[in-house]
Amino acid sequence: MAQISLSRRLRRTPFSEGVEAAGVKGFTVYNRMLLPTVFESVQADYRHLKSHVQVWDVSCERQVELRGPDAARLMQMLTPRDLRGMLPGQCYYVPIVDETGGMLNDPVAVKLAEDRWWISIADSDLLLWVKGIANGYRLDVLVDEPDVSPLAIQGPKADELMARVFGDRVRDIRFFKFDMFEFEGRDLAVARSGYSKQGGFEIYVEGSDIGMSLWNALFAAGEDLQVRAGCPNLIERIEGGLLSYGNDMTDYNTPHECGLGKFCNTHTAIGCIGRDALLRVAKEGPVQQIRPITIHGDEVPPCDRPWAVYAGGKRVGQVTSAAWSPDFESNVAIGMMRLSHWDAGAEVEVEAPDGTRRATVREAFWI
Amino acid sequence: MAQISLSRRLRRTPFSEGVEAAGVKGFTVYNRMLLPTVFESVQADYRHLKSHVQVWDVSCERQVELRGPDAARLMQMLTPRDLRGMLPGQCYYVPIVDETGGMLNDPVAVKLAEDRWWISIADSDLLLWVKGIANGYRLDVLVDEPDVSPLAIQGPKADELMARVFGDRVRDIRFFKFDMFEFEGRDLAVARSGYSKQGGFEIYVEGSDIGMSLWNALFAAGEDLQVRAGCPNLIERIEGGLLSYGNDMTDYNTPHECGLGKFCNTHTAIGCIGRDALLRVAKEGPVQQIRPITIHGDEVPPCDRPWAVYAGGKRVGQVTSAAWSPDFESNVAIGMMRLSHWDAGAEVEVEAPDGTRRATVREAFWI
Repeated sequence: MAQISLSRRLRRTPFSEGVEAAGVKGFTVYNRMLLPTVFESVQADYRHLKSHVQVWDVSCERQVELRGPDAARLMQMLTPRDLRGMLPGQCYYVPIVDETGGMLNDPVAVKLAEDRWWISIADSDLLLWVKGIANGYRLDVLVDEPDVSPLAIQGPKADELMARVFGDRVRDIRFFKFDMFEFEGRDLAVARSGYSKQGGFEIYVEGSDIGMSLWNALFAAGEDLQVRAGCPNLIERIEGGLLSYGNDMTDYNTPHECGLGKFCNTHTAIGCIGRDALLRVAKEGPVQQIRPITIHGDEVPPCDRPWAVYAGGKRVGQVTSAAWSPDFESNVAIGMMRLSHWDAGAEVEVEAPDGTRRATVREAFWI
Repeated sequence: MAQISLSRRLRRTPFSEGVEAAGVKGFTVYNRMLLPTVFESVQADYRHLKSHVQVWDVSCERQVELRGPDAARLMQMLTPRDLRGMLPGQCYYVPIVDETGGMLNDPVAVKLAEDRWWISIADSDLLLWVKGIANGYRLDVLVDEPDVSPLAIQGPKADELMARVFGDRVRDIRFFKFDMFEFEGRDLAVARSGYSKQGGFEIYVEGSDIGMSLWNALFAAGEDLQVRAGCPNLIERIEGGLLSYGNDMTDYNTPHECGLGKFCNTHTAIGCIGRDALLRVAKEGPVQQIRPITIHGDEVPPCDRPWAVYAGGKRVGQVTSAAWSPDFESNVAIGMMRLSHWDAGAEVEVEAPDGTRRATVREAFWI
């Protein structure tokens, strides 16, 4: 397997020192920043994540900050989700679309105040789109990337670990809400969110200088909880149906194709740049959609490119994420399936690199 | 050293199969695409590049295509370089700046026709900025990423190899000009350009389907020329002063700080979005600038983050690229130096990870 050549361009994070000391074995690059992918092994990391608590360096979830009188207006221009009811202290998962309805990112919007928002982004330079729109429409808003690096605490013991460091009040944070907590004299936004289905928090660490201090405090407090350094886990996120922008969908896909129609209030999201395109999409309905797929047989090799899906000799879709699930004792996968073969129970064939596999479309994700 | 975890998100290229068969040992990620970094070793690749000819998979130099009546107007909005005299068939190195004068990319603009341009980009999603501007200003232009993957032929024997595949007419292409050449019935733009100082060409391979066929044709034709698979070489590009966006400069820097003032015709580049900001910068002059630096002593370790530069106990700059040069028998480096210490001959100290090194600012790059 190939090595990764490090350079300043692949940015380190405020927690890189801790990640290295914990024995990281693999990285990917996400928003031009290092994102760990494996510590012990993907299967061992998975078992630990489901049993204990992990600290994840997800600094690569960079923030796009909008500040100023037009911040809320700009935010609504970016997404078909209706933001009028959103209050400060809330997080919304928001598809971001261009004027054709193509997805540019699938971030979490964090409303700090009416005139101050963060967009916690997936893997694309959304900053450049937002800056271009702000400039082109001459909006009264500042757009930049602040020194904020999310640290995720995930797993069944996340509440206990976080309470030890931030106090019992963290237990009261509700899902996709955030509140402010002090650490070493600094106020940090802590949200109940994260890229796993095991529960937990994301700490928006403002100021790189306190990164390792917070990292160390969490590990010191959690020794008896078996806290470990971890990272988004391929197996667990497929089981849970957590999509990966760039893997499971790209700017060629609409939110409806990604099963994100429920986050599109296209009729009421007045101002959204992709609104006209999405009204048409919503009316006609998508002809392909993301589905959970079980791939039969032994453990599949790594999915590093789309695997074509066939039925009766015709191409009916593609698999874009796949892994062996120890808990479900089968290969779990995410794919984009044509209308003709997206119903639960559809039997198809997947062209995996080690040969053709039988596969079955599922009704729902595994957890 | 850590491994790279592959996934669809780190896009493969039309030449990946050839790159793998040639025994690639390391990758970086560039524009969310795999870019090889080493085949035999960085030093052996360097020696070969300077002696023979290499075929480089630089598909990661993605193209942003502008098509339509407002294409030329949009192109001029993006850059402070005056494009009025540019003709179809020419390539221009163009700093791209935002409204503050910060560099968003340092690509090569390729003028196919008055109403059709490619921007061959460095490592940032420039597509999103250009789409945002086109949308915000309601320009009559289509902006997208076409299926075009550059393949670079670099080294002293590049002319000979290219003539064997495309005919002797390739020898007539002048520096930073391109012409059209047929390969398997398809017309491809071939430019005399590339990210080395050894001479050569970049083939804009339009249509992924012919990628491996062209790759194989080049290797078949060049066996006696000792053609090899290669990639941009860290040592050679530092010697030659070829800057790397994301390494040597970011959006925090102006073109003037990067020594790119000669590509800024700010007075006449009417329409450029960053023009007002750059007029101020040009008037006041930058207070820091990129410089070649010799770092004394043995071979430096890999430079994966900025190394602080001090003089008399004060921070006066940073080194962002560095490598041992076999030909110059010293460490060659690129750094951003403060005005007080950017003159040739300035003696400074570099905080390398293995200790403090003496270093000297140079007048010019090595080649």
